[in-house]
Amino acid sequence: MSGLKPGRLSLNTATVREQWTLAQCIEGCQRHGIGGIAPWRDKLHEMGTTAAAKAIREAGLSVSGLCRGGWFTERGAIDQAVIDDNRRAVDEAAELDAACLVMVVGGLPKGSKDLPGAWALVEEGLAKTLEYARTQDVKVAIEPLHPMYAADRACVNTMRQALDICDRLGDGIGCAVDVYHVWWDYELEAQLERAGKDRIMAFHICDWLVPTRDLLTDRGMMGDGVIDIPRMRGLAEANGFDGLNEVEIFSALDWWTRDPDEVLATVVERGRTVC
Amino acid sequence: MSGLKPGRLSLNTATVREQWTLAQCIEGCQRHGIGGIAPWRDKLHEMGTTAAAKAIREAGLSVSGLCRGGWFTERGAIDQAVIDDNRRAVDEAAELDAACLVMVVGGLPKGSKDLPGAWALVEEGLAKTLEYARTQDVKVAIEPLHPMYAADRACVNTMRQALDICDRLGDGIGCAVDVYHVWWDYELEAQLERAGKDRIMAFHICDWLVPTRDLLTDRGMMGDGVIDIPRMRGLAEANGFDGLNEVEIFSALDWWTRDPDEVLATVVERGRTVC
Repeated sequence: MSGLKPGRLSLNTATVREQWTLAQCIEGCQRHGIGGIAPWRDKLHEMGTTAAAKAIREAGLSVSGLCRGGWFTERGAIDQAVIDDNRRAVDEAAELDAACLVMVVGGLPKGSKDLPGAWALVEEGLAKTLEYARTQDVKVAIEPLHPMYAADRACVNTMRQALDICDRLGDGIGCAVDVYHVWWDYELEAQLERAGKDRIMAFHICDWLVPTRDLLTDRGMMGDGVIDIPRMRGLAEANGFDGLNEVEIFSALDWWTRDPDEVLATVVERGRTVC
Repeated sequence: MSGLKPGRLSLNTATVREQWTLAQCIEGCQRHGIGGIAPWRDKLHEMGTTAAAKAIREAGLSVSGLCRGGWFTERGAIDQAVIDDNRRAVDEAAELDAACLVMVVGGLPKGSKDLPGAWALVEEGLAKTLEYARTQDVKVAIEPLHPMYAADRACVNTMRQALDICDRLGDGIGCAVDVYHVWWDYELEAQLERAGKDRIMAFHICDWLVPTRDLLTDRGMMGDGVIDIPRMRGLAEANGFDGLNEVEIFSALDWWTRDPDEVLATVVERGRTVC
């Protein structure tokens, strides 16, 4: 498999979140020939959704996803505040014409050890959000997070688990596949086949470093770790995925400290050479 | 479910590995009324297997497991050195009359990104070890490690994956279930049922801390984290497990720095109150 041209990459704003605003990210993508962008909502709100949508459109960028809805377990119940926040996220995804709204579903409620209870909250929240998202023509993408985040970020941790939820909830919901979270899973090939084109809604790339010095913010640039990205991209594409390859790197110790134009130049080069 | 009496606990020597020799661990278990022990091989070799077996027997302790065989991927091939080391581990487990030989199977070979290749090496190594273990009446227990160790310690990361291997290899092989590694898995209940009494060969307890400051050595004392240990123990026992509850805590920042008699007293107290 040949490498990725920059037009097939998308920049998740988390990759330069310490350095750039959304407006700077949009300009940076243009400058480096990157084909798409995936804003986080904090940066989107800073800029304003309408202004951001206009700037992204005028820059000729696609939106590979909006990060993030979800967080259904935070308040211990699916109350109106949780529902409303997710509705706003759906509205923003619609205004951006995002390929999907990425869901980080939430971990255990504070002080709780009740994992089955958390799973139930998540499914209730997803169902209610999906109901509204269908009316706005927005696709909902569950992002299974690495199991090391089960307690504090997301208690959906494998493609199998996410697809079981999708099976129960019906059309319009699928998965955001991030190599960092699922690379280790011996079932990945089978579950990508099970997901199929309609349910592989996003494909995120970065790398798993050895050693990993921090559970959250020590993710690697593609090529610096142990993930066989071409194999995983091949599996996604063999099952029909034809969207952008979204680069999302949480890296407090390295890439967040660098000149963001150097970061984007490296992203483009690694896209060509190791992805 | 009522708590655990100390006689139903076993001390994995890793819990006080920085403080005590195996001989001291054996005496410590006696002093605190703990019913069993699970030596790591480095400590076993320091004391000598025959001397250790005698001391453990005289102390009236059971051996809930020997840690560890495996590490099949380290040399990139299942060569004679790997086979011989695992045979020695089997012999040691037999001499100790251990409930099982715990297998930490190994991660990616150095410099490799070939996870399917690593899985194949692991299965070859397990098959060869099992063949010999059957002749010595030693049970082989695959320990699925948390997916965050897939690269550098074990590329078998779920109960489902371990049991798929067991299904292919036949009798005499099962799982060591450590709550730290599998607590997050929505399939745990179903997979423990699938495993059944014969294949739940060990049950290890500790806790998942939030936040976790280090991927390897920041495991918590039972009760200090988010794992619902009684629920998990209940699932194991409902499927026939009646062995000891082995306490294995890697804790460079906390328990390894304390007076080991304080550690054991805490283990006993937490066994009664939160397990």
